[in-house]
This record gives sequence, C-alpha cells and structure tokens, in this order.
Amino acid sequence: MPTGFINGVIYASFNPLRRVEALLIVNGRVIYAGDREVVETAIKALGGELFDLGGRVVLPGFIDSHVHLDELGIYLNTLDLRNVRSIAELKEKLRKHAERTETTWILGHGWDQELFEEKRWPTRWDLDEVVRDKPVMLTRVCLHAAVLNTKAMELTGLLNAHSLSIVRDENGVPTGIVKEEAFDNAREKFKETLTESDYEKFIEDATRYAASQGVTTVGFVSCDERSLKALSKLREEGRLSIRVRVYLSPGRRVSNCWEILKALKKLSIRRGFGDDMLKIMGVKILVDGSLGARTAWLTKPYSDDPSTSGCPNISEEALESIVKEAHEAGLQVAIHGIGDRAIDMILSVFKRLKGVERRRHRVEHASVLREDQVEEMSKLGIAVSVQPRFIITDWWAEKRLGKERVRWLYSFKTMMEKGIAVGFGTDSPVEPLNPWETIYAAVTRGKYEGISYYESTAKESLTLEEALQAYTWGSAYIMFEEDLAGLTEGGLADFIIIDKDPFAIEEKELKNVRILETYINGKRVWP
Amino acid sequence: MPTGFINGVIYASFNPLRRVEALLIVNGRVIYAGDREVVETAIKALGGELFDLGGRVVLPGFIDSHVHLDELGIYLNTLDLRNVRSIAELKEKLRKHAERTETTWILGHGWDQELFEEKRWPTRWDLDEVVRDKPVMLTRVCLHAAVLNTKAMELTGLLNAHSLSIVRDENGVPTGIVKEEAFDNAREKFKETLTESDYEKFIEDATRYAASQGVTTVGFVSCDERSLKALSKLREEGRLSIRVRVYLSPGRRVSNCWEILKALKKLSIRRGFGDDMLKIMGVKILVDGSLGARTAWLTKPYSDDPSTSGCPNISEEALESIVKEAHEAGLQVAIHGIGDRAIDMILSVFKRLKGVERRRHRVEHASVLREDQVEEMSKLGIAVSVQPRFIITDWWAEKRLGKERVRWLYSFKTMMEKGIAVGFGTDSPVEPLNPWETIYAAVTRGKYEGISYYESTAKESLTLEEALQAYTWGSAYIMFEEDLAGLTEGGLADFIIIDKDPFAIEEKELKNVRILETYINGKRVWP
Repeated sequence: MPTGFINGVIYASFNPLRRVEALLIVNGRVIYAGDREVVETAIKALGGELFDLGGRVVLPGFIDSHVHLDELGIYLNTLDLRNVRSIAELKEKLRKHAERTETTWILGHGWDQELFEEKRWPTRWDLDEVVRDKPVMLTRVCLHAAVLNTKAMELTGLLNAHSLSIVRDENGVPTGIVKEEAFDNAREKFKETLTESDYEKFIEDATRYAASQGVTTVGFVSCDERSLKALSKLREEGRLSIRVRVYLSPGRRVSNCWEILKALKKLSIRRGFGDDMLKIMGVKILVDGSLGARTAWLTKPYSDDPSTSGCPNISEEALESIVKEAHEAGLQVAIHGIGDRAIDMILSVFKRLKGVERRRHRVEHASVLREDQVEEMSKLGIAVSVQPRFIITDWWAEKRLGKERVRWLYSFKTMMEKGIAVGFGTDSPVEPLNPWETIYAAVTRGKYEGISYYESTAKESLTLEEALQAYTWGSAYIMFEEDLAGLTEGGLADFIIIDKDPFAIEEKELKNVRILETYINGKRVWP
Repeated sequence: MPTGFINGVIYASFNPLRRVEALLIVNGRVIYAGDREVVETAIKALGGELFDLGGRVVLPGFIDSHVHLDELGIYLNTLDLRNVRSIAELKEKLRKHAERTETTWILGHGWDQELFEEKRWPTRWDLDEVVRDKPVMLTRVCLHAAVLNTKAMELTGLLNAHSLSIVRDENGVPTGIVKEEAFDNAREKFKETLTESDYEKFIEDATRYAASQGVTTVGFVSCDERSLKALSKLREEGRLSIRVRVYLSPGRRVSNCWEILKALKKLSIRRGFGDDMLKIMGVKILVDGSLGARTAWLTKPYSDDPSTSGCPNISEEALESIVKEAHEAGLQVAIHGIGDRAIDMILSVFKRLKGVERRRHRVEHASVLREDQVEEMSKLGIAVSVQPRFIITDWWAEKRLGKERVRWLYSFKTMMEKGIAVGFGTDSPVEPLNPWETIYAAVTRGKYEGISYYESTAKESLTLEEALQAYTWGSAYIMFEEDLAGLTEGGLADFIIIDKDPFAIEEKELKNVRILETYINGKRVWP
C-alpha cells in the first residue's frame, strides 16, 4: 500500500525552495519527502511499490483558484470553426463532430462567412443536411450571430418568433441565422434545455482536462445549482478527476443568492463543508464588469471614452447585506472587482465586518488598483485571486486607462510585498487553463509580445519561485487548503511530472513546459 | 509523524478474528497491523514516536448507529435527584449543580416527595432560595410533574396561565409545581428558549461522553436544525471529539421533512456529503411508537390489551412520497419501525423503489418481526439498526406480545444468518451508551436477569465475536463506513484500550469491561 517515488528532481516547496530526490506516499498523503535510502528502507519493511522517476522533474499540482468548470466543459465540447474556408468544409467538420457528440446540443464556434468560398452565409438547410435529429448552434467568430439548424430553431422557439434579429429569406422564411437579441435568446434557451447528463458530461470533461493540464485543485467560481448537482453525483461515483472547491453563484439575480444562502443556513453548511474532493466554500458575487467592455467600474472615466466610468451591478447596500449574511453563516465570499471604484465598494463593505481576515474573504481579479487600496487590503487581511494571463490578453489596456493608472494594473509584486495573500487563477475558459501560460505571463509580463505597458509595470514581474509559490501555496491559502500547499510531510500527495526543469530553462521557454503525468492522492489520474 | 504502537493484544478484526501485537499509524490511518519488528524498523527509517502498550488490550472503536446526541447532552447536564431524602438535600444538590452549570437552564430529574423528610412537595420558593437568576426545572421521577423556580415559571408563561394542572396554594398562587399538560408545556418552552451555545454545550458534552465510553462514531438520528448547526460549528472549530453521521429529522411534522429535503436537493447534498468527522447521511422518519406505550403498530392486538394494536404516525402514501424523494436525491433513509405492522408498511414502500440495496436504507429497531419479514428484508437488501439492551429493559415484553410472537422479538441471530446487514445501537439516552452493556445483552439475552422470554429466544444469542462484529463492521456498513470497520491497513485509526480481554473473561463479566483510553485518527481523545 505505501508507494515510493525515487530518483526524481522533486520540487517539494518554493518558499523556501526545497528539492528532494524521493517521496513516500501512504493513503494519499506524503509521509516523507527526502532521501532515496529512507524511502527504500520503509518500503522494504512495510511492503508496497517503488517507482523510479528516471530523473524526471516533479512539482506539486497546480491550484487554479478561479475557474468556470461549466463554461470550460461547454467550451471543450464546442467544435472549433475558426479559419474554415467553405460551407462544404464546415459541413464536413460538423458531420465528424456530430458523430462524437454525446450531449443534447451540437455546438460550434468561430466561423466567418467572409472566408467562405461560397460567398454567402450558412443556413439552417445547410446544417439540416448533416444533422436533423439534434439541435445545432454554430456561433459566429464575433459572438454576435449564429446559425441554427431547424431542430434548434424549433427548440428555441425562434422559428415562429417575431424579431427583426431573425434573418429571413426573400419569402420571409427564417434562414437559421440569428443576430443580437435573437442570438442572446438562442443561447439562453440552449442553457435551459441542457439535461442533467449534459452537465455531468461538461463538468467531467472539464475536470479531466484540468488533470491533463497539471491542475489538481480548482476554485469553481459562479457555480450554479445544476453544476453543483453534477459535481455531487460525480463525487459520489468517484468520477471527479480533480479536487473542486465551490463558490456558489446566483448569476446576476440577487434574489437567487438569498435563496442559496437560505438553504446553506438551513443545513448549517459552513465554509469547507465537504470532503477532500469536493467542498462548498461560499458564494461568488459580481460587483462590476470588464475592462474590455468598459463595464469595469473606475473612479475616473475611461481614457479612451470619457463619457463612461463603467458601472456597478449591485448597490453597496445589497452587497453589504449579502456579504454580512454569508460572513455570519461562516461562509467565504469571493467578490468580482476589476475597477478601482468597484474595489472601493468592496473594501468599504469589508471594513464594516468583524473578522474578515479569519474568513479570508476574496477579491477576484483586483485588476485596476490604487496604491492606497493595496495598503487597505493588506491591513484588512483580504485574499486576492489574480489572473496573470490577462496581462497579455489585455494588450490594449493602456488605451483604456492611460499611462498613470496602467502603472497599477495587475500589480502582483506590490501586493505580495505588502503581505496580501495572492492566489493564481485563469478564469478559464476566458484564459487558457494551462498553468505555464499563466506563469509565463506573470514572469515576463508581455516583454516578448511588445505589450505597451510592459515598461511601466516591469517591476511587477514575479520570479519563477514567486509565481510557482502563488500557484500552489497562494491559491491553497486563499481556499483554506494549506494541506495541499507543496509536497510536505502530512500534505495531500497531488503532484505532476513535467518534461523539463523550469528552473533550468530561459523565461521565454516557460510556456513550453509540458505535463507528462498528473497524480492526485498519490494515484495517477492522467494520462 | 508516524506513530507505532507495540506490545499490545490488538484485536484488528472479528470476522475473521485477527490478533496482532503492533500498529503503525500515519496521518490518522492504520498503514500496518502486525509484527512489532516491522513497526520498529519503519519508525527507525521514517522517524516518529513509538508507544509501548504494555500488554494492554486494544479494540477498534465502537460505532453506535443510533444515538440522540441532543437528548444525551441534555441528560448529561441534568442533576440526578433520585433517592434524595429531603428538600434540604435537594437544595444543597441544586446549589452545587448551579455553580457548575453553563447552560441557560438548570435541570434536574428524579425527585420523589414521598421520600422527603419534610413530607411535602417542593415549591418554587424553595428553589428561589438557591437560584433566582436562571430558570430551574426539576422533573419528578415519574416524568408527569416538575417543580420550577419563579424565573422558569415566568419564562414558560406558566406563572400567569390558567390551567388546572398548575398547582396553587390556598391563596390561589402557583407553587411552581406543574403536572401533565402544564408539565408538557414547560418542557416544550424549555426547548424553545435554548440558545445556540446551549446546543453547542449539549452536543459537545455528548460527544466527549461518547469518547469516554469507547464510542468513536455515532449515527445521530432525529438530528434537528439546531443540533446540526451546533455540530457544524464544533466541526469547524475542531471541537468534535468523535465522528458523527447525521440523519436529519423533522420531528413528527411531515411538512418539516419536506423543507429539509428541499434544502438538501437545492444544494445537491447526497448521502455522505461531509468529511471524516461529520457527514450528512439522509433523513429519519418515524412510522410507529414503542412497545412500552403500546404505540408500536402490530398486526394483531396487544396480548395484554386486546383493545389496541398500536398505531402508525404516518400514512403509507406520505411515507412513500418522502422515501421516494429522498431515495431519488441520493439520500439514505432511516425509518423507525418497532411493530410488525409498521415493518410491513416500510417493506411495502421499499419494495416499490429501485436500488434499495445500493442505498442501504435502514429500518430502526425492527423489534417485533415475523419470519416472512426476515426473508423479505434479506431479499431487498435492507440494513437494520438494532438495540440489544432493549432485551433487558423490556423484561415485560412477553406480556405485551404473548408466547408466540415473543419468539421473534429482537431476533438478531436469525437476521444475521439470513445475511441482513445488522448494526448495533443504544438509542442513548434511552439506553446507556456504554457498549459493554449492549454486548452483554446481545450475548446473554437476560439469562442472568431471569427475563421471562430468555428461554424462548435463547437461540438468538450472539457469540462475543458476532456482537463485536456487529458493533464495528455492522454499524460501519449500514453507514457506508467500511473504512472504519476494524484496524486494517488503510482504515481510519480509531481504537480503544480496555482493562481486560473480553475473550478471556466469563460472559457475565462482559458488562464490567472498562475503557482506559480512546483514540481517533490515531490521537488520544480520552481521557
């Protein structure tokens, strides 16, 4: 039953940086990390298996503190139609994809009729030639339009609806193309008609994919009741590949949040209730939007659109009453705040609570900060989940914020120096789940991509040790999972084997590290 | 971190009976049970502590599958007033007890004015002399009357209520003595006014007491929302001494059960959600009453009262709809059924479900069985929680049931021979939590107490191995806790050290075995 791993380059922790050659694992936990001889002696006495790592590199599993597992599962089950050059090619791809699809809907994304040889938009009749019995929805690259097959038009009620955003042919018959409002309706109806087994498939696929990326624990933010149901079933059946920590979400409707809180209170579900694989942590609340859509709420107007400063999704009173209720029920809150004005509101609410530090309440993103806010967050003992890969995706951010404000964009180093608990995340599927993309971004900050604000924020670059520490210990801490922080005696044996030593390569190469094997509780879960 | 226990008489399992001399425990689990040399070698290689058991006897911890922790906690905080010989003595005892009491109410039980030197009933003025600032309620030995101090009379509203069951002096002033209806009201009001910290104290005391009795896991049946809240808080704060598996209960009101089920479904809490210390299992439902009160529901009338056959508390339709809802939500049900007619109803409901065996749905007590029901239960794969100590308490049962039916009373051996999963319980505080009282009763069945139905049910006596197996593996199985069933490799390290080897003493002596130490997760929790 004991398992020994010997002859490895094993990074057991990053602060301090500790390298060992062998691990002894029993009942899913590391009971010794150190010398090969000790592990060999113990295995000889107790029985058990010995694995030779053959000099390969082992790291603790990554903990992604901010992931949308449901959306990631849908994303993984969506056919990639970017760069398709004809309707014929689209149909051929759809045919193959439909054969493999196990869920109720067949989904695709990324087509652009401008690239099509046929020089026309696709229609529902094109799709019907390939799939008639199941609904098909293929979204255009811009996410403002889609083509649906007849079955999908029927299911969504759009075949017989009156709307200018339903495209019709010369006879007034809907072609299957829907735009804007009708497009939004279609996507909403799609979600409503998903079945329990669709959700199970999405969540299971997402957790398996996470394992393949070396991610052994995730914070699942904005988890709704249907996703929770799927998780609960998968856990019971032993089909959960990775550990999931759940932040329940009402979506944008505040009344739903109260219903969830009522049920949590009725059953006295406090933060951390659950087992090593699945735990309920608390609730997720959205305060503002995104920089891209100029809905992140700023103190001063956007530099590239002085007519707006963004806006909040919730009043301070409503936020305070939910946060207070959750806090008093022993739950953790994770609050989405991107703009500095949104963060002001969050801090103002936290300041009026007792024992914020003990609950490690989280701010999600904390993208646009002011120096005084960093001080305040440090003083209050607030935890932060950051998404370093945003640095590269938001290459246009200096236009939105101007030179002065951009200095405080994604200021990870300052936060860490001020003693704020910082965990890493990807917001997947918004950013790739691959941790090496995130580490690369945290270490290089757009230096090789020519990001305009690289120079002014270069001092916020992290060392590799700091990035790895935030992706393991940091994310663990903000989810009360110190047991998972590194390969130390007594901790859970979640680790990965990778193809190169990240400490022996150039920073530019960090995004090319590959995961060879992933272990949870000392057992291989991937491949 | 590893801990070795050597030089013991360690019963690792009972079927087969396995005795070893040493255990190696790491991270709360047994990783090896066997020879001293192996344990010593492993500790030498890995570090850790070595304990010499000095030849003492070790057993796996007991699992009591049916306990009322809240009632047990109240019982433990109640002053024992049996055999008090005067009001003066009662006051002196009350004074000492009040000094130690941390809960809102001061409780006592067992006084009998017939024994008092003063030859009168106690009054609220007697009690007020000792305690004025806190409510006091002392119940009479018969549980049909109580004396309350003035504070308690005020709090319960009985000081100014109109009721013939409130005793008054010659001037019409309430004396503090309440009987029957007013007595029931006082007890109800008492429960309503209990605070969260009262509940925490009751539950914490009950779990610590369980540890002192060698009980390391309990099935807490009829757990209400307030008890669950206390458990959840104690768990979070690391104050739970033993493992608790919860069967939620609506009390007698069926509508409450639906509310609980609604919350469980909303959060997708399936059976077993929780951690090693605290898990939610499902719901408890009452079908009938007790043999003592002639409310257990029988097929044929009571032998000592042909006017009644007992009665059900719930219709078959209502039972079926709740059981079905819980079953489909992935929860376990535990249904109280004492009389054979009640068990008919339960079996009839179970028969119409799919996958009963997989859920291990429980019948609680299953006291009065017919032979055909044993066959049916075995076929359906139903789990049963029995309370062997009832055999001795229900010494009058032959009068209630007659010679023919009593043959099938508490037929543990037959059930086990038919392959029914049988777990042991005490219904504490109804019976003593002390497992040796239960084992003694299961093995001797009233032989030494001259129980009238000893002869006719003697063949239902269990061997010591069978009784210990039911108290460990059996109770574990019916709560899906095979990890706790014995001290085997990979299992949780819950065990006790006792003062004598139960296999080396006469059966009569079994109830005199004493618990010396109790360990949970390999750590001593008592004394």
